[in-house]
Amino acid sequence: MFLQNEPSKIHITQAHELIQNRIHRTPILSSKSLNAIFECKLFFKCENLQKAGAFKFRGATLAVMSIPKVDLKKGVATHSSGNHAAALALAAKSRGIPAYIVMPRTAPQIKKLAVQGYGAKIFHCEPTLESRQENLEKIVSKTGAIVVHPYDNYTVITGQATCAKEILEELGEVDYIISPVGGGGLLSGTCLSAKYFSPNTKIIGAEPAKADDAFRSLKSGTIQPSVNPITICDGLMTQLSDRTFSIIKNNVHDIITVEEETIVAAMRMIWERMKIIIEPSSAVTLAVILQNKKKFIGKRVALILSGGNVDLDKLPWAQ
Amino acid sequence: MFLQNEPSKIHITQAHELIQNRIHRTPILSSKSLNAIFECKLFFKCENLQKAGAFKFRGATLAVMSIPKVDLKKGVATHSSGNHAAALALAAKSRGIPAYIVMPRTAPQIKKLAVQGYGAKIFHCEPTLESRQENLEKIVSKTGAIVVHPYDNYTVITGQATCAKEILEELGEVDYIISPVGGGGLLSGTCLSAKYFSPNTKIIGAEPAKADDAFRSLKSGTIQPSVNPITICDGLMTQLSDRTFSIIKNNVHDIITVEEETIVAAMRMIWERMKIIIEPSSAVTLAVILQNKKKFIGKRVALILSGGNVDLDKLPWAQ
Repeated sequence: MFLQNEPSKIHITQAHELIQNRIHRTPILSSKSLNAIFECKLFFKCENLQKAGAFKFRGATLAVMSIPKVDLKKGVATHSSGNHAAALALAAKSRGIPAYIVMPRTAPQIKKLAVQGYGAKIFHCEPTLESRQENLEKIVSKTGAIVVHPYDNYTVITGQATCAKEILEELGEVDYIISPVGGGGLLSGTCLSAKYFSPNTKIIGAEPAKADDAFRSLKSGTIQPSVNPITICDGLMTQLSDRTFSIIKNNVHDIITVEEETIVAAMRMIWERMKIIIEPSSAVTLAVILQNKKKFIGKRVALILSGGNVDLDKLPWAQ
Repeated sequence: MFLQNEPSKIHITQAHELIQNRIHRTPILSSKSLNAIFECKLFFKCENLQKAGAFKFRGATLAVMSIPKVDLKKGVATHSSGNHAAALALAAKSRGIPAYIVMPRTAPQIKKLAVQGYGAKIFHCEPTLESRQENLEKIVSKTGAIVVHPYDNYTVITGQATCAKEILEELGEVDYIISPVGGGGLLSGTCLSAKYFSPNTKIIGAEPAKADDAFRSLKSGTIQPSVNPITICDGLMTQLSDRTFSIIKNNVHDIITVEEETIVAAMRMIWERMKIIIEPSSAVTLAVILQNKKKFIGKRVALILSGGNVDLDKLPWAQ
């Protein structure tokens, strides 16, 4: 079943072997014009082109692959309004098992349709953490489904770690990897892969200033709550968990916060220059470069574009 | 200098060798979900990821590379409000020669900025064909610059032919290649590459029904004017020329017209499912599949996504 301790190098390597035929090995793109503007070498790891449109599919796939055969028919369950829901639904479908997803009534229709399109069963709840958990518990007690938390789960973290492993395999040592940080699943996995596969690479977490709980947690040394985050980065509003925070605290080089208008500018820059669609939560990585150009001049920097699921009717630069 | 006759197989092969280190060999992407929806195998040739954001860079580069050394310092000139202007500007810059671009005052600011960003000199004119030509002649008589027509030029056509050559090299024989048709540079080049490298492959031109001059020209056997085209496909409003029409007439399998709302739906489908940015003119290719699903069931079909230069403030689905 799921890992009980912080994943080791061997765990990540074996996880990658287990899932590599089920996930996309996403391309790493670069842009001459962006390199010229920022005077450094930027490498964009395109998890927006991952199955289900986000890196979340790595962890969800590893979780589903880790369930013993006897338990498979019980299925998996989670509460999520975002990319984890769709990723878990698709991973479950690929293995032919049921998925039960608790989603707040207020979740965007497009997200509900994606989850439904992957064949999962949706349960609507009120948009509060209490209602989400209550509904999830009800479903689990009825079905016996195995709960896959979006990030407070060492198996999920191991799956997300395969993204940075691919970056380091393809590029060799880089000076920095910048990863968005919300609940910390991607950032903690990235920290572990760097520690094991490229110990000189520094890992930076990128976070909206208006949802800066990870930044405050790192500075204070204890997990700080995410209070009323108001950001266009809908994937980065959650707060760290015990498992993700302990890994991040011990391994991250820094967490850098960025302003909303810088995030929008970075997002638009990537759309216009690179002709790829990324969601706002992905753009925090380039926003870090935009706001701290000097720090990165002459460096080799990998940026994780975490997802590409955007409501095209609500773009942040539209009136 | 420029080719005087219809290009041969050897011309296209040599052209490709000449430009291949200066252009991107753009990726060919596919989407499981789109294949499932349309019950065929679709291959998207991503010229939206080409330098300067469109296939036009192929022809422009070949044209610039074909100028004898003694004439280089005179530079190149054209009139264009779109992708050809940016492509020629960048190709000239790459060879270190001047570029003079006549653009209508009314051209979008974003296009002017792109051309300027590539170091070309812009001359504003009135938005009429007469004013464009008059201004171009003035510049040529002053500078001696060599005029590079966007499509009525066999060298440019040869450059555009390298796109389909890459498709056929990578995929082997396919049943169909669908190319947008405006002035016919891309479609005629595609026809020639298929004729030489994969004679069983059928070439289809995709055209907006509201700018259907190529369709009418093919049916009537003589070039028909493009009268008041009203389409979101800003790259497909021009009409065929003698050189492009003679090649298309003799080699194309069919030209299929598509409705505006189908083009918007196809564009949005590619943005949402494939997470890449294409301009409306590229979306006519998938619109052909959307409108004629039965015809393509079970087939292997390559679609040329001709460009990705979009004004993000004016998306066709926005109110």
